[in-house]
Amino acid sequence: MATGELPATMTAIGIAAPGGPDALVPQSRPVPRPGPGEVLVEVAAAGVNRPDVMQRLGRYPPPPGASDIPGLEIAGRVALLGEGVSRWRVGDAVCALVAGGGYAPFCTVHETNALPVPDGMDLTTAAAIPETFFTVWTNVFERGGLRPGQSLLVHGGTSGIGTTAIMLGKAFGARVFATAGSPEKCAAMLKLGAARAIDYRQEDFVAAVRDATGGKGVDVILDMVGGDYAARNHEAAAMDGRIVQIAFLKGPKVEIDLSRIMLKRLVHTGSTLRSRSVAEKAAIARVLEERVWPLLNFGAVRPVIHRVLPLSCAGEAHVLMEEGSHIGKIVLTVDKDGPGGR
Amino acid sequence: MATGELPATMTAIGIAAPGGPDALVPQSRPVPRPGPGEVLVEVAAAGVNRPDVMQRLGRYPPPPGASDIPGLEIAGRVALLGEGVSRWRVGDAVCALVAGGGYAPFCTVHETNALPVPDGMDLTTAAAIPETFFTVWTNVFERGGLRPGQSLLVHGGTSGIGTTAIMLGKAFGARVFATAGSPEKCAAMLKLGAARAIDYRQEDFVAAVRDATGGKGVDVILDMVGGDYAARNHEAAAMDGRIVQIAFLKGPKVEIDLSRIMLKRLVHTGSTLRSRSVAEKAAIARVLEERVWPLLNFGAVRPVIHRVLPLSCAGEAHVLMEEGSHIGKIVLTVDKDGPGGR
Repeated sequence: MATGELPATMTAIGIAAPGGPDALVPQSRPVPRPGPGEVLVEVAAAGVNRPDVMQRLGRYPPPPGASDIPGLEIAGRVALLGEGVSRWRVGDAVCALVAGGGYAPFCTVHETNALPVPDGMDLTTAAAIPETFFTVWTNVFERGGLRPGQSLLVHGGTSGIGTTAIMLGKAFGARVFATAGSPEKCAAMLKLGAARAIDYRQEDFVAAVRDATGGKGVDVILDMVGGDYAARNHEAAAMDGRIVQIAFLKGPKVEIDLSRIMLKRLVHTGSTLRSRSVAEKAAIARVLEERVWPLLNFGAVRPVIHRVLPLSCAGEAHVLMEEGSHIGKIVLTVDKDGPGGR
Repeated sequence: MATGELPATMTAIGIAAPGGPDALVPQSRPVPRPGPGEVLVEVAAAGVNRPDVMQRLGRYPPPPGASDIPGLEIAGRVALLGEGVSRWRVGDAVCALVAGGGYAPFCTVHETNALPVPDGMDLTTAAAIPETFFTVWTNVFERGGLRPGQSLLVHGGTSGIGTTAIMLGKAFGARVFATAGSPEKCAAMLKLGAARAIDYRQEDFVAAVRDATGGKGVDVILDMVGGDYAARNHEAAAMDGRIVQIAFLKGPKVEIDLSRIMLKRLVHTGSTLRSRSVAEKAAIARVLEERVWPLLNFGAVRPVIHRVLPLSCAGEAHVLMEEGSHIGKIVLTVDKDGPGGR
């Protein structure tokens, strides 16, 4: 597509004012132009993530320089190349991690933060990859140092991140335990490869993990719960265990016992993805492409999609996410002819 | 010394019952015999450490298999070789990390946990090396990953561990900040090489560190304070900062904010030395000998000794340590003819 063929404006989903799902409204916006090293992607689908909900509520402002349109991951076709782009050509099918702006028919991204759509995968499914795969790789494998033969405990095992962590943990030779809040969710986690699914409404995960590891505890814990889970994660961890914090649904202020950190030589760490620089995200992308893309190309791993909705129903997608009964990802698709189209 | 020349019993300092410094009393004990791979050391001097005080109070029981006599570090001459010992000969001057039993005229240690007394150093000074040098190396450099050009914050900067951390941090190219509770202590820390000494009674260390680093914060924090220092350490840390916990004088139950761990990608970890296996201590000893012994041999680094007392005055040594006005190490010497001798 040449610049001349691009529309000047598009209908994106913006946040009218911080608030409920109704705050997500169609807004006319200029079609962004790619800067040096960036590509413009004609978005086919965008993944929905919990930070989008936080942003809608006014609790997670976009980082400096990022679009105020929500949406942290997209898939689509390259529509225009910025100066100096070398990897992609117009028409290439890509999925990408973006710092914002995904709920729109067009979105720019640095070429290094985009990856090829895996072999034979449709764009809607590919839009469900970036946020969770980047998050799980950098936190579980890089930061948490999970190695084959070790064990991994995944909280929120049916979330987008949870399902990805179970699959990747298992694919890379770890024994995975996962928690969720219903028998249906536990069944889904077992199907994804969890060695043990723990219904936290029925049993204490510390006792369950202790039991499943012969008293040894678990090597790596991926936690997005926080609150009282912090101290319980330290209890559930093995000697030299690593706890990686990526969110805190139950709150950030927690009480922990330093003697347990010392005696078990625990490592409690964590990170956020969105605030990383383009270069840091590019580094994660390179390793993902080398280590994880073969699994996606081969079909050994595939994102779990709970529901696909048109972009104009972004509010409904947020309601679904906030209800929390979903298993896997919620994806929005851009209907070129309907609302949200250009 | 042949086995025949060794006395059967010795007068060591035992703990009559958990309690105050008076609980430390001379007791007649059998002279221990070295097991396979161990040497018997005729102790010239033993360092005093805070865990000895905790053990005396009944709050830090010796690990399984360790002597119930207090004392975690010694220097002296090898008196007898256990089966298979290859590195040492009778008469060699060594200093060693022991799991207990240091407050005595004889003490056994695995040959791999002993190191040569540095060139030209007397045995009393050498007895002040092992506990703090093993602790600082494994926690600051291995666990905390301090690298040249980075910054280090040392709490309790005039303790045995604090003085060693300041010297080694500086020697290995870091900019060291240290906290203590008096102008005299601050002067001592500057003399040891601290770039900035923070009197915690006069100023907030978080603000001081922020000021000293141009707002960036500090890369590695060695903390033995705990309590409210935990959250303040997280505040004082730089992006990707590491907080290494080795004690908690103000208490182990602390409140922290997980959002700070995530946003700064902090690592909060810690360890204890005494509970490590002989093999783990041997691994630390090997690296120490390679990286730090040259500095000790050359005299570039030398343990700071606050006071030397005879073994029979172990109670007085504990009083000194509990008062907390010392700068550097307190060492007990074995007087062969007096109390504590054989």
